[in-house]
Amino acid sequence: MGLDAETLEPILPDAVTRAAASLLETAQAAGFSIATAESCTGGLLASLLTDIEGASDTFERGFVAYSKQAKCDLLGLSHAVIDNCGAVSEPVARAMAQGALARSNASLAVAITGFAGPAGPSDEPGLVHFACAAHGIATRHRVEHFGDIGRGPTRIACLRVALEMLGDMLAAAKRRPRAA
Amino acid sequence: MGLDAETLEPILPDAVTRAAASLLETAQAAGFSIATAESCTGGLLASLLTDIEGASDTFERGFVAYSKQAKCDLLGLSHAVIDNCGAVSEPVARAMAQGALARSNASLAVAITGFAGPAGPSDEPGLVHFACAAHGIATRHRVEHFGDIGRGPTRIACLRVALEMLGDMLAAAKRRPRAA
Repeated sequence: MGLDAETLEPILPDAVTRAAASLLETAQAAGFSIATAESCTGGLLASLLTDIEGASDTFERGFVAYSKQAKCDLLGLSHAVIDNCGAVSEPVARAMAQGALARSNASLAVAITGFAGPAGPSDEPGLVHFACAAHGIATRHRVEHFGDIGRGPTRIACLRVALEMLGDMLAAAKRRPRAA
Repeated sequence: MGLDAETLEPILPDAVTRAAASLLETAQAAGFSIATAESCTGGLLASLLTDIEGASDTFERGFVAYSKQAKCDLLGLSHAVIDNCGAVSEPVARAMAQGALARSNASLAVAITGFAGPAGPSDEPGLVHFACAAHGIATRHRVEHFGDIGRGPTRIACLRVALEMLGDMLAAAKRRPRAA
């Protein structure tokens, strides 16, 4: 979303762009596709993955499930899991990733839910739960405490973690014999 | 997605950020909410709208319908409309906006489908169709020929048009008496 004043080209953090391009290349070569389920990043990961030329085959779809109702409608979460655990929690991240996998044709799905900025008085700014799901592999979870570093940097940090998890899951999925 | 090297804060084109913030403020004050259906922008609009503090109430959900199948599954398009008109066409943009409105709790929905970069040999780089839908108002369509200006600038240009359409539609919707 940044622009270079001279060229009007978007400025991307190099490491993040390289990680995304490398992930897509590996996924494409192995015939895998990716779905995203985003809350606090609000589509930023999907936007990054579709900003790379030739992503069409590899990025399958993205869900921006910002509201509670959207998480339930789009990803099949129960109101109970959100009410009981909170929207920023391990169970919700896991359910979002599994929902995105079930409700897409993708072979890998990653979910991000967290507090990018100050939220409620008892919410921890920078707390983000991630989950990554693939068919036939146990869903993985990761939690990060980025601290109160600001909305933008938190969202960028989320991209790094999500790409890392997708990369690891892709490596695991490639090692598995695939169903015909 | 850009970062200022000094502060690690994302750099946003000022005019676009201001337009998004102003739209959200007006929508929030009037009790309206927004859904997005994105193809070529791949979540960039959703990401922009959720990057603004206090957007939670106003941005309801986003669909990143990059693949043809995703457009059908997520937004209820028929394969026939895509096959007959092409994924980058007025009927598809309209159906995406209406699908996003029908499949969300939002009061306004905007759709973007286009060629951000070089695609097939007969595809026009920079050709983008937009549509904006609201309950009780005729869906609006706009087409832009941005030219071969590159993937990033095309996507940014798409944000400007989509925000403009949402703003106009919001103004029209505010003038209508709302159902109880």
